[in-house]
Amino acid sequence: MNSSALTALERAAGHQRRFEVSFAKYFAGLADSLGGPPLSRFGPRCLELLEQLSLRGGKRIRVVLLHEAARLVTEDEPPGLTEAALSLELLHTHALILDDIIDDSPVRRGGPSTYYAFREDLPERPQTALGMAMMAGDLAGFLALRVLLQADIPADRRQAMLDVQIGVTTDTVMGQVLDLERDLTPVPGDELLDDVCEYKTTRYSLLAPLRLGLLAAGADLTRHEPSLRRYATLAGISGQMRDDYLDLFGDPETTGKPRGADLRAGRHTYVTRALLAATSGSDHATVRAALRAPDCTAQTIDRVRGIALDHAVHSHLQQTIEKYAEAASEEASSWRAHWRAEAVTVFEQLPWWNARRSS
Amino acid sequence: MNSSALTALERAAGHQRRFEVSFAKYFAGLADSLGGPPLSRFGPRCLELLEQLSLRGGKRIRVVLLHEAARLVTEDEPPGLTEAALSLELLHTHALILDDIIDDSPVRRGGPSTYYAFREDLPERPQTALGMAMMAGDLAGFLALRVLLQADIPADRRQAMLDVQIGVTTDTVMGQVLDLERDLTPVPGDELLDDVCEYKTTRYSLLAPLRLGLLAAGADLTRHEPSLRRYATLAGISGQMRDDYLDLFGDPETTGKPRGADLRAGRHTYVTRALLAATSGSDHATVRAALRAPDCTAQTIDRVRGIALDHAVHSHLQQTIEKYAEAASEEASSWRAHWRAEAVTVFEQLPWWNARRSS
Repeated sequence: MNSSALTALERAAGHQRRFEVSFAKYFAGLADSLGGPPLSRFGPRCLELLEQLSLRGGKRIRVVLLHEAARLVTEDEPPGLTEAALSLELLHTHALILDDIIDDSPVRRGGPSTYYAFREDLPERPQTALGMAMMAGDLAGFLALRVLLQADIPADRRQAMLDVQIGVTTDTVMGQVLDLERDLTPVPGDELLDDVCEYKTTRYSLLAPLRLGLLAAGADLTRHEPSLRRYATLAGISGQMRDDYLDLFGDPETTGKPRGADLRAGRHTYVTRALLAATSGSDHATVRAALRAPDCTAQTIDRVRGIALDHAVHSHLQQTIEKYAEAASEEASSWRAHWRAEAVTVFEQLPWWNARRSS
Repeated sequence: MNSSALTALERAAGHQRRFEVSFAKYFAGLADSLGGPPLSRFGPRCLELLEQLSLRGGKRIRVVLLHEAARLVTEDEPPGLTEAALSLELLHTHALILDDIIDDSPVRRGGPSTYYAFREDLPERPQTALGMAMMAGDLAGFLALRVLLQADIPADRRQAMLDVQIGVTTDTVMGQVLDLERDLTPVPGDELLDDVCEYKTTRYSLLAPLRLGLLAAGADLTRHEPSLRRYATLAGISGQMRDDYLDLFGDPETTGKPRGADLRAGRHTYVTRALLAATSGSDHATVRAALRAPDCTAQTIDRVRGIALDHAVHSHLQQTIEKYAEAASEEASSWRAHWRAEAVTVFEQLPWWNARRSS
């Protein structure tokens, strides 16, 4: 790793650190700024669970992308960037809460999912717990737009940033629908998997941070839209493939979750797609049977994993992951012609980090 | 009924008629303007169910209030009013979809609820159907903000109208949470019932249309906020009480639903509150037992209704409904000093129509 990459990593850590402080401060002032009904017990509980889930959170890749996108244009941090970061992460919280209801997941980010936290609060009232969790998710989605609507920045810039985020909300809904639909499809093709990745994840996790950062810094996006989209789509597919890869081939000690969760949930991923394409006969039948039988045993997962290793599915998939990462990185290199080299480097490196991460 | 009231009724019918045309047109162009993933079957199905539920719709009281609020200031229809009407009704669609999931209701507005429509589409996949319905609801909420964000009106006016609607979204979530919470409370007080009414319904169905109509017409709200709030709160409580009244005392042929749905769902309403306050001994015990046993029989409901009639709960409640309507109407009368008489008349009449309606 060369010295410019090291600097980029240090800068990323700084963005993350500062964001954690902003996010905690945001939640500290939220109840007062909402002014909800005075007698409620579960209103405050909703806010508390939103806060806990949000602050337990992840790698903040969106926040890093956002800040570095602004740095493509300027070294100074432009106003509105903090609100954009809050908006992105609140939208992510929204997606996680709804995902966990749909998947009936008890755990998220090493703590209870919002749905299961309410089920523990209300053990005799599962339907009320469902309602409360839906409301917490709903609230997070609206707060994601509210924080940007209330940003103290010039009106035209605010409008442009809100346009990005409102587009992202509807894209993400359509992506989630397509995700559900995919698992009803006997053998979904690559195009369907790519579309789920694009709409459900890439648009809000990669493209939106890029666009918001550039807009906050005053860039005119028109000329650059096609390149930004290509970059986001390539890096998005590479990252999703790596997620799917880690689910079956990762080290559970490092990923923090048991192997084969996707298979157990009957999810059609890039891994299962590659498995079905690479196998025939009884191996093929074993994989199909595992996909059709949710909650399959650890033994079945080990067997499928063995089949995958025998057919070198893991190494072929990793080659594909790196091919996409390389293409994304090359797309970013073309930005050197008009944007700041220091930040371009980050966008060149990022797909590679993503393609080789172990959790 | 005097001639100015008749004119107001005719004008209201015109607002409703024109809105139905706008709403249908909005949905006709929606899929193209969203540009979702091309391969999806359930994405278009989401939009279709949103459209069907939205267009099957109700009395459009919000639309009438909005247009008449603008007419408090000007006879001309100001730009942005159509988008505000679409925003209000989309937010209502959002609330209905989520309500029906939480209440597990099969029917809404004389057709299948969105949740049950998906359950029919996916009879073997109830969890996927739940996910699809949640996504349809989610989408309606975001579209409600999107339509206003894309309104072609001056930026400061658009911002002020968006501020109203974003406040309404979070208020409504808090109201829904309090509504769920109310039914966990053994004997909720009047204040709690009033708060549920205020946050869950009044803010988006009465106060928001008033504020949006005035803002679209260029009015400065600051001076008038307290009076608008008093009007909305009084008319809101009166209307909610009438809803609760009709649930037990209405004519099922006219209301279009069987008597006692609230009781069957174990809901604490203004009627059950009045019943518990008016009774003692075995009558009181009967009411409490019915509330604690969801899905009670038609016989139990008849018995509770008999107790209510014996204790004249229906006539006392109707007196209270009219007392609130009168106070709201008086509040509107104070607007004659600064706003157009023709529209003020509508706001004076409306609480009375609401208090005496039979469905």
